[in-house]
Amino acid sequence: MEQPKNMSETAILLMYCPDKQGLLATVTDFINVNGGNILYLDQYVDRQDHIFFMRVEWDLKNFIIPQEKIEEYFSTLYARKYDMIFRIYFSSKVPRMAIFVSKMSHCLYDMLARYTSGEWNVEIPLIISNHPDMKEAADRFGIPFHCLPITKENKAQQEAIELELLEKYDINFIVLARYMQVLSADFIEYYKERIINIHHSFLPAFMGAKPYHAAFERGVKLIGATSHYVTSDLDAGPIIEQDIVRISHKDTVDTLVKKGRDLEKIVLSRAVGKHIERKILTYKNKTIVFN
Amino acid sequence: MEQPKNMSETAILLMYCPDKQGLLATVTDFINVNGGNILYLDQYVDRQDHIFFMRVEWDLKNFIIPQEKIEEYFSTLYARKYDMIFRIYFSSKVPRMAIFVSKMSHCLYDMLARYTSGEWNVEIPLIISNHPDMKEAADRFGIPFHCLPITKENKAQQEAIELELLEKYDINFIVLARYMQVLSADFIEYYKERIINIHHSFLPAFMGAKPYHAAFERGVKLIGATSHYVTSDLDAGPIIEQDIVRISHKDTVDTLVKKGRDLEKIVLSRAVGKHIERKILTYKNKTIVFN
Amino acid sequence: MEQPKNMSETAILLMYCPDKQGLLATVTDFINVNGGNILYLDQYVDRQDHIFFMRVEWDLKNFIIPQEKIEEYFSTLYARKYDMIFRIYFSSKVPRMAIFVSKMSHCLYDMLARYTSGEWNVEIPLIISNHPDMKEAADRFGIPFHCLPITKENKAQQEAIELELLEKYDINFIVLARYMQVLSADFIEYYKERIINIHHSFLPAFMGAKPYHAAFERGVKLIGATSHYVTSDLDAGPIIEQDIVRISHKDTVDTLVKKGRDLEKIVLSRAVGKHIERKILTYKNKTIVFN
Amino acid sequence: MEQPKNMSETAILLMYCPDKQGLLATVTDFINVNGGNILYLDQYVDRQDHIFFMRVEWDLKNFIIPQEKIEEYFSTLYARKYDMIFRIYFSSKVPRMAIFVSKMSHCLYDMLARYTSGEWNVEIPLIISNHPDMKEAADRFGIPFHCLPITKENKAQQEAIELELLEKYDINFIVLARYMQVLSADFIEYYKERIINIHHSFLPAFMGAKPYHAAFERGVKLIGATSHYVTSDLDAGPIIEQDIVRISHKDTVDTLVKKGRDLEKIVLSRAVGKHIERKILTYKNKTIVFN
Repeated sequence: MEQPKNMSETAILLMYCPDKQGLLATVTDFINVNGGNILYLDQYVDRQDHIFFMRVEWDLKNFIIPQEKIEEYFSTLYARKYDMIFRIYFSSKVPRMAIFVSKMSHCLYDMLARYTSGEWNVEIPLIISNHPDMKEAADRFGIPFHCLPITKENKAQQEAIELELLEKYDINFIVLARYMQVLSADFIEYYKERIINIHHSFLPAFMGAKPYHAAFERGVKLIGATSHYVTSDLDAGPIIEQDIVRISHKDTVDTLVKKGRDLEKIVLSRAVGKHIERKILTYKNKTIVFN
Repeated sequence: MEQPKNMSETAILLMYCPDKQGLLATVTDFINVNGGNILYLDQYVDRQDHIFFMRVEWDLKNFIIPQEKIEEYFSTLYARKYDMIFRIYFSSKVPRMAIFVSKMSHCLYDMLARYTSGEWNVEIPLIISNHPDMKEAADRFGIPFHCLPITKENKAQQEAIELELLEKYDINFIVLARYMQVLSADFIEYYKERIINIHHSFLPAFMGAKPYHAAFERGVKLIGATSHYVTSDLDAGPIIEQDIVRISHKDTVDTLVKKGRDLEKIVLSRAVGKHIERKILTYKNKTIVFN
Repeated sequence: MEQPKNMSETAILLMYCPDKQGLLATVTDFINVNGGNILYLDQYVDRQDHIFFMRVEWDLKNFIIPQEKIEEYFSTLYARKYDMIFRIYFSSKVPRMAIFVSKMSHCLYDMLARYTSGEWNVEIPLIISNHPDMKEAADRFGIPFHCLPITKENKAQQEAIELELLEKYDINFIVLARYMQVLSADFIEYYKERIINIHHSFLPAFMGAKPYHAAFERGVKLIGATSHYVTSDLDAGPIIEQDIVRISHKDTVDTLVKKGRDLEKIVLSRAVGKHIERKILTYKNKTIVFN
Repeated sequence: MEQPKNMSETAILLMYCPDKQGLLATVTDFINVNGGNILYLDQYVDRQDHIFFMRVEWDLKNFIIPQEKIEEYFSTLYARKYDMIFRIYFSSKVPRMAIFVSKMSHCLYDMLARYTSGEWNVEIPLIISNHPDMKEAADRFGIPFHCLPITKENKAQQEAIELELLEKYDINFIVLARYMQVLSADFIEYYKERIINIHHSFLPAFMGAKPYHAAFERGVKLIGATSHYVTSDLDAGPIIEQDIVRISHKDTVDTLVKKGRDLEKIVLSRAVGKHIERKILTYKNKTIVFN
């Protein structure tokens, strides 16, 4: 993949904790006084639950704390003191993403095109499917493709193989690109808040199977798509991104499916892009999506 | 109200029937050979159920069938033969609309402003409310206001008075402008397909009470509003119009309510405008909305 | 007007200055250590020009600096030191807005409805027009209406009278609600960054007169509306808000005008609402619109 | 490419002519009485210029006029009589499309993905570029790629080679997928109304080079993309499709470029899809886009 040039390394801190006066000053001070140059900062206070959320990205060039010690120092000096939940990411550590797909190609191609063109700072070393159909697409982009058909009987077995593959390829997060299988609760738990799905309706309307048929039956004037983190509750995980397109009485289920494809791929890719850029925090089954 | 000037009278035919070859030619011929000049025509064929829907508007100036005989002639010559459901409207017969309102003013003012400016070819001779709050708004526009508070005990009684008022004022259709009362099935039956409601969510998501609270809890990234004809199934009638607005994690229930207001009034007024222009047909709990 | 209840008084600081490390901490510290409770904070750094922009709102209940001294203290202690451009507003000082209107009522009614319902924390004591048409609308809402017809010959004279009226009614800012007259450069200078206009196109497309006709001629598939601060360059001032609506080949100039009305009123009212909430800063002919 | 199965052959008539009573009946009669089953019909009357436009698609299975004679019969019996401009297409004749591209891949990949998945009833046998960068993308999808760098000096020569290639590959229409060269008037004339471009602004705003820079400078709150037929007037041809996305003061030229990419590819592909489906008529530098 092409890499952005001449960029020095950066660190990203994602955190939240009970709100207190001066938290923002405290964290920015930690970066400033130790030689970090803040590049982006976005914060948000949940005034109902009194929680402070923040994302800050800074240049590490003159930062005096060694990279491998930053987490420890931050934890010792601040996180424990303020009951922070936090994670630190480094731009040098490119996240590794697996795509799960069934028979439809539109989301898959959209992501592979972004990946190949260098739009996303990610590695995609693995595509898994329950059908052989997308092998050709994977081959076009030179990405290993593993076909693991799922039946009621072999599901546990196949998921075990999938987990091995994910480990072998050192995968950090999974994107379900219209993968038409429900993952087991154990599998989901293993990749908690690290599995992104696209559902082809504006959730919570039309959960479950065949949402375009349901939308057609109900006679709605808009159809939607929703990208969300997968939880063991089907189609009920934290929503990352949604969008809609207008339809009319002239649309059939077929034209809804067609119009929906463009929506699905754009909504999913927006969500995946935000995840790659470490811009999402989840809290109480909702997402905070930073700028 | 201001009236558009120099417009000669027009007729509008709204119809549907089992699809057959040549239906469109048959109907347009009926108008053409009898001297009618077609101004607008829109048709649609439901290819699943094989139903032909059509709206046609024509200038009556040189039409040789007398206005009061058009319905009879069309019925005799075509409607029975082709099993048509149809209705004919005349531009000279201005529809009369009643508004039901509770405490919120945004939809009410939006409609009164359109009415007063002559945007809509309608009369609004009556406003009914279960609260006294909107009397001042009604007074500003010089429209009779009747306050009929509803309790579990007096509901049947009050609805009877409402029906009397509607009859007295010769009302053709009713708009529920954030009227926070469920109408009885009998009342709805009486004004079947002639009661338009605005629901403050993108139906079928968040039916029933407090949809903004439910949207906030679910963490959606869009909120919506839906205008629909009222049926005895709560929030489940034929949808006329929907729209949405983007929200984010920064929104509270209060800001959702505020953003939703603009959505509600525009979506409701779009639906009411289409109804006034006789552009809506309902079929199987859906609407066909002609251009 | 209804007032929100039980709200204690707040202060709003809008500021910008050359960016430096620690600015945010400095300003929030000033508020925190003096007993202010920060309610909302939004900041933005222009990384091209290295300018720091901020809006912060805090509760004055326990703030130890007397309200009438805050500006002086802030100026002395920080603003001069950091070359800040700043302004401080207090929730107790309700802004006073005049509406200029010509013959069209849609924007006027939309704003009067918001005003009357208490949606906006504003006073509207004055409506000025170059035509008598909107007197009735002003009367409905009990607002003084002054008709000052403008000709090439009397323009300077009439503007002088307008300025007197604006002074007499202690007006802070002006909204041109489809006011079809170009204000003189002197007049604009007098109310610099305090005159909000609505232009009926997505600027910079279709500047000047008859944008719907121009849009129709060009065959665009979207029409727009733009709200902006007025400068002496016609339709070229800082843009506050824009939106669009889809159109098709079926639209005529008349239907564009009709569809545009809903767009114009919503876009203008969004901009006016942001101005009333003190959420807009202008810099280099652009706006920063805070959350 | 995958082909839709079990579809019998259809004919599509696109036509316009001076409006007259009974035109629609005349054309549908021609199809009906000769055994054609109308599948889709959309018509439109320009009431200002009195022009009747129509698109009708019918099943040829029982149509009694031989396919190769339909054009002649229609021309003789109707077109000359009514001064019709018309064209007849057959579903069996798959249109052949060439893509012109420079260095950016997003529009190219989006179209190749649709092509490969069978979403479009089209052949893409040729990609031409003035840069070598996209050869790899073309190779991935097995499509011949010709690199023809353009300079001021060699432009006429290179365009001659391009025209030869287009002829050799029997190309019906050309899509400029962010092709950063202006075609000569002669070239354009040769493929009149058969070259589709994507311009990265909501035209007519920001015509010409660097529209995202211009949008950033102007401080707009929306950016857009416009797909249009190419004429010898730069960025001034008939508009097929436009869309926009919201931006804010936080966006830089870089983020505009990024947000614009998704807009560009979707808007271009929507336009190309409509062209492939023979749903576009051009008239007076505008498009009629049928349903």
